[in-house]
Amino acid sequence: MNMYDLIMKKKKGCELTNEEIQYMINNYTKGDIPDYQMSAMMMAICFQGMTPEETKNLTLAMAQSGDMLDLSEIKGIKVDKHSTGGVGDKTSLVLGPMVAALGVSVAKMSGRGLGHTGGTIDKLESFTGFTTALPKETFINNVNEIGMAIAGQTADLAPADKKLYALRDVTGTVDQMSLIASSIMSKKLASGADAIVLDVKTGDGAFMKTLNDSVALAEAMVSIGKLAGKKMAAIISDMDQPLGNAVGNILEVKEAIDTLQGNGPKDLEDLVLTLGSYMVVAAEKADTIDEARRMLEETLRDGSAFEVFKKFVVAQGGCEEEVLHPEKLPVAQYIEDVVADTGGYVVKIQTEEIGRISLLLGGGRETKDSEIDLTVGVVLNKKRGDRVEKGDVLATIHANDKEKLEQAKKHIIDAYRIADDTIAKESLIKKIIV
Amino acid sequence: MNMYDLIMKKKKGCELTNEEIQYMINNYTKGDIPDYQMSAMMMAICFQGMTPEETKNLTLAMAQSGDMLDLSEIKGIKVDKHSTGGVGDKTSLVLGPMVAALGVSVAKMSGRGLGHTGGTIDKLESFTGFTTALPKETFINNVNEIGMAIAGQTADLAPADKKLYALRDVTGTVDQMSLIASSIMSKKLASGADAIVLDVKTGDGAFMKTLNDSVALAEAMVSIGKLAGKKMAAIISDMDQPLGNAVGNILEVKEAIDTLQGNGPKDLEDLVLTLGSYMVVAAEKADTIDEARRMLEETLRDGSAFEVFKKFVVAQGGCEEEVLHPEKLPVAQYIEDVVADTGGYVVKIQTEEIGRISLLLGGGRETKDSEIDLTVGVVLNKKRGDRVEKGDVLATIHANDKEKLEQAKKHIIDAYRIADDTIAKESLIKKIIV
Repeated sequence: MNMYDLIMKKKKGCELTNEEIQYMINNYTKGDIPDYQMSAMMMAICFQGMTPEETKNLTLAMAQSGDMLDLSEIKGIKVDKHSTGGVGDKTSLVLGPMVAALGVSVAKMSGRGLGHTGGTIDKLESFTGFTTALPKETFINNVNEIGMAIAGQTADLAPADKKLYALRDVTGTVDQMSLIASSIMSKKLASGADAIVLDVKTGDGAFMKTLNDSVALAEAMVSIGKLAGKKMAAIISDMDQPLGNAVGNILEVKEAIDTLQGNGPKDLEDLVLTLGSYMVVAAEKADTIDEARRMLEETLRDGSAFEVFKKFVVAQGGCEEEVLHPEKLPVAQYIEDVVADTGGYVVKIQTEEIGRISLLLGGGRETKDSEIDLTVGVVLNKKRGDRVEKGDVLATIHANDKEKLEQAKKHIIDAYRIADDTIAKESLIKKIIV
Repeated sequence: MNMYDLIMKKKKGCELTNEEIQYMINNYTKGDIPDYQMSAMMMAICFQGMTPEETKNLTLAMAQSGDMLDLSEIKGIKVDKHSTGGVGDKTSLVLGPMVAALGVSVAKMSGRGLGHTGGTIDKLESFTGFTTALPKETFINNVNEIGMAIAGQTADLAPADKKLYALRDVTGTVDQMSLIASSIMSKKLASGADAIVLDVKTGDGAFMKTLNDSVALAEAMVSIGKLAGKKMAAIISDMDQPLGNAVGNILEVKEAIDTLQGNGPKDLEDLVLTLGSYMVVAAEKADTIDEARRMLEETLRDGSAFEVFKKFVVAQGGCEEEVLHPEKLPVAQYIEDVVADTGGYVVKIQTEEIGRISLLLGGGRETKDSEIDLTVGVVLNKKRGDRVEKGDVLATIHANDKEKLEQAKKHIIDAYRIADDTIAKESLIKKIIV
């Protein structure tokens, strides 16, 4: 077997066997297949596509290229959730404690943010002392005792994917559905969960801008997971405006706590209830989606979700006082409103632009090594479909730099499109694929 | 401008500008664009193709990536001939002296053979003392005085093509018509001729196996040349059997001398008359193809072509005695006939296989650094359409190794397909594109 023949086979549109895919991934990871052959293969795949079987085999080969986490010491069915990333997406902070409160084991590997979307670990580090560098025993004990733990990706998960993604990133071969799906799923399969619920964002602030593309990606990932023997569900949710109102690390943590106490924005609550109900059913803690949803609503009302959140943060070194009194978390130096210069209805919020404003203020990473400012960000006061009068507050900016504050104000005005006629409010949940 | 954007542009099927192609080729040649980006681009080109304008620009960019030969000191219109390579192709040895005898300047850069096709320089080195390592002044003087000179490719011609071809060779991106055409034509354009006549072989022993592909390649090359301001013609000629009867270096030199003396095989003579008549017209030494053909026939009858050949070989250090008495050239140790084990008609000769037999006997190069044995080879006694009786000689093998001789015999039997019914003799010249 040699890589040249495999390139020619794929170029002609033939299906690669599992053995061929394993040969390719193993030898590429070892460095025995050079980048220039792999990039030709990736481009051929962009034109010829991959069958579901090939995609599953590629995903498994990449998942098995490094450590495979063994979560067998954790009791019950392990359910993982993955989001394709969006603006204001603090879902994990709310969802984890809710399902854990119902006995679902939440053993999560999480990453840091890059570009205009934030990362769960960054947000949690808002709490003084919080750490995700947990020894494996502590991680497992915490899940078994509290119901939830979040660790940073210290393990060597799917190194083939890491190497391949870096190559695709510079050779114009990122935008192929099977390759995107297998990249995401290889890391999920290496993380050891029994069931995976996917939150696939769609719209201006998401990686996938159109509903068609988002559905295709969701279907590809669900297909891979099922072929690999996992329980799967994918929720396609709106990212044509930020999720909730807060964008920025500490601001989002506060909103997450509000939501856990039953006082969160409606769209965020709706999304966590939807995602959570599929997780709870997958973990066999409820028989139907409706039953699961009612149980999850109860965890917000009776304080049990917030209680898990508190224990989880404290168990990972976070300051309890800050969880109980989030107003004690640090705040930015400048907090200023941006007001509408015209009246009408909000018909569009350029979501990626809102993410970029947070980045500009210092709340995100331009590159892997950037330092981030946890206090800065934006809180939206008006969302899509809302009535606005001239002079109404559109959003509030939290900044630590006067110049950046002024730039951010201008960008906020630009990001809001206000028109005379209102638009129909669209549903947050676009589609569910099981 | 950056390579990533150019890859994406081509991937989407858009046309690259001349500026973009120059940026790509210049920076790839310098090493500033890595192989892995170029191979992704080449694969995208395999799927999206290139327009004639893009192909011309790519060819010129590659031609200009190294030395451009200046032949202005040579008088008259410089006409070059290029063959895509075949088995038994000794055309240059006969054609050069014929057109030179009519006053056409033949200033040729030539290569050595690789794989199953032979090279002109290897053949000429059959003459004791012959060299192609000529100082530029000698080369130009010889052309001006004798009418003909052949030099090895010492100049740094089209280094971009050399680098790109090596990459395409290992990334499954060789078989794209525009890329093949621009690779050949970049070296031709760098060689400084005013007019180029192409001999595009088609069939089993050629690079292009089908007539359709050969026509497409010929059209692509003619189009590039014309867009670059050159006079162009392409002759598509049969390579479904070896050209002439001899395959192997010294054996082919002897056949070339026979042909120059008017005693050559009909197919070889027909091909050189056809190619030559387009060269003579391009050099403005005749007004019509028919007139040129008659003039060329005369060079064989009156000995003027052979006279040029003799002077040319001697001027480059070759032994005159061997030219006048080719029977004095070295011969192989074993010369044995292969006889037919059945009667019938020759309906097919696996031409590439005949080339491989010569290679097996030591007459060609497996790799760039192989030593070659000039004496070995095969002389065919029967060609397509010929009647054969059981026991007739099909071919004669010239070998210096008993074991290889026996292997070669078996391969000859395999290469000939003999059937009860005859086939129509096909024309040697398949198509002419001007």
